[in-house]
Amino acid sequence: MTRSNRPVVAVDLGGTKYIAAVIGPGGKVLSRVYCPTLSHEGPAKIIERLVTSVNQAVKKAGLKLRDTGGVGVAVAGIIDIKRGLITEAPNLPRWRNILLRDLLKDEFKIPVFVLNDASAAALGEHRLGAGRGLDNLIYMTVSTGIGGGMIINGELYNGTDGSAAEVGHMIIQVDGPLCHCGQYGCLEAMASGTAIARMAEERLRSGWMSMLSRMVKKGKPNITAEDVAAAAVKGDALASQVIDDAAAYLGVGMANLVNLFNPQMIVVGGGVSAMGERLLRPARKSLKLHAFKLPAGTVRVVRSALGADSGLMGAAIYARQQAGGKP
Amino acid sequence: MTRSNRPVVAVDLGGTKYIAAVIGPGGKVLSRVYCPTLSHEGPAKIIERLVTSVNQAVKKAGLKLRDTGGVGVAVAGIIDIKRGLITEAPNLPRWRNILLRDLLKDEFKIPVFVLNDASAAALGEHRLGAGRGLDNLIYMTVSTGIGGGMIINGELYNGTDGSAAEVGHMIIQVDGPLCHCGQYGCLEAMASGTAIARMAEERLRSGWMSMLSRMVKKGKPNITAEDVAAAAVKGDALASQVIDDAAAYLGVGMANLVNLFNPQMIVVGGGVSAMGERLLRPARKSLKLHAFKLPAGTVRVVRSALGADSGLMGAAIYARQQAGGKP
Repeated sequence: MTRSNRPVVAVDLGGTKYIAAVIGPGGKVLSRVYCPTLSHEGPAKIIERLVTSVNQAVKKAGLKLRDTGGVGVAVAGIIDIKRGLITEAPNLPRWRNILLRDLLKDEFKIPVFVLNDASAAALGEHRLGAGRGLDNLIYMTVSTGIGGGMIINGELYNGTDGSAAEVGHMIIQVDGPLCHCGQYGCLEAMASGTAIARMAEERLRSGWMSMLSRMVKKGKPNITAEDVAAAAVKGDALASQVIDDAAAYLGVGMANLVNLFNPQMIVVGGGVSAMGERLLRPARKSLKLHAFKLPAGTVRVVRSALGADSGLMGAAIYARQQAGGKP
Repeated sequence: MTRSNRPVVAVDLGGTKYIAAVIGPGGKVLSRVYCPTLSHEGPAKIIERLVTSVNQAVKKAGLKLRDTGGVGVAVAGIIDIKRGLITEAPNLPRWRNILLRDLLKDEFKIPVFVLNDASAAALGEHRLGAGRGLDNLIYMTVSTGIGGGMIINGELYNGTDGSAAEVGHMIIQVDGPLCHCGQYGCLEAMASGTAIARMAEERLRSGWMSMLSRMVKKGKPNITAEDVAAAAVKGDALASQVIDDAAAYLGVGMANLVNLFNPQMIVVGGGVSAMGERLLRPARKSLKLHAFKLPAGTVRVVRSALGADSGLMGAAIYARQQAGGKP
């Protein structure tokens, strides 16, 4: 077995949880370990636990690290891909200028490759998911935040440094609400799960009637995007309008991407996309309203096929590619 | 002389004027004919005059059409590049579903290739201008409208249909001013020459003091972006603030592009960019404020090197590429 056809270790590190897994060619999951990220603990402790989890996953697969082709790590951050450096990570407190690749390489003594988590998900969906065989696609993850990845001419496009496709931090309302990243009016501040919850809370506070008001009365301090989605499905007017508004903004972001990239497909993943057509139908309508006819007529907007695994699969594919093997 | 090394005919068709030229390898201009577009006359008459101008340019170069390698036509419109079809063109009234390539092919009996004018300019700047040898760059033209073109991995990126890089119709203010294209809050509606003139007129009407007020009193019905730029250079407060505001919006558009593409360079052309650093300095400042540090630190924002010729050069390069020759 050449190094390139060996199983690889894949890690998907998000703000809430991380997954370490061993993945064979074709995306076969040989083992998998889930852990909470506990992001408040900061990079040193998280990396320590991550190393332990990787070793557990490898052991669970009945392998040793040196039997694998390498480690692919997908991280929710702005990554200098050539140096394997996390420059900043809005959802991982204190991850600034962390040379993650070298830190892990020193531990594992095998090749380590680091990339953005949504870029990894784009790669996963392109090779094993909804966008197989396409030339140009954009992946968007809509969850607490909004991330993105791009496939251009059949390959992952990382940009000059590795930070391309930050679709959530495209500004669509210059004087809009404050975003987690410090800017105002980012798509993320207007259409993410965080934005959905905020919009619902604002309207509740201004006195709208809603089944969500009862939840507040019961002492629940924070409404989640899931609460709003559930209420919308039950026909609640406030919740329905919040979802429609968020979907309309999402469609504006998609229209911008369509006018800029003219892709064949936009694949939507992430927790908020679990709503499915309740989110995508109004988003598509808004997209068609805001983009030029030609590219709007071409693009298909579909849900992710790999779901929560797209980033993990992409991390594995990326590690295998970088280690010189076949995807 | 093989077909691919012959001179080619290049046409740059804009809303105000068009140019037909014969261009040798390396960008040598052998002849050139300028004409006003007279866009109100509609497609049939414009195409008729365009054919005459091409024949004039070829004659002026001492050639016959069949001695050239083909015709490259850069058009300010949304173009289905595979079919050579102008689907719509905000600055060319009644250009809807015009099969320009086939119409010209029937006339000229040699290969004809049609592409977007700002995409052509991106190609021109990449091969002969400010961005030679780079992997990733974005060209933006800021004039009456705002157009764009992208070089990705060293090649012109046209998207699935040929309509990619419509940077002027990226929405940066969902509830912003009406754009020529029918949408609200496009970059073009907030940072183009048209937007600069509109912002100055709005502020004059609301009673601001300015050296531009005197121009209005003299019966001049419309302020132009050139007037505003000239007044700003003379230190006029209203004009200076309008230019700063437009540049700040331009910087927001650039920041979005930088967060999405992580390019090495943004090349700025078009009439409004003749202001040079008076526009680019505040635009760069706004870019750095609104984009992530990593890609904002990488990108260089420079003026076009080919000026008004970038589209024409790109049309020639594109025709030569498509005809199978070397750029």
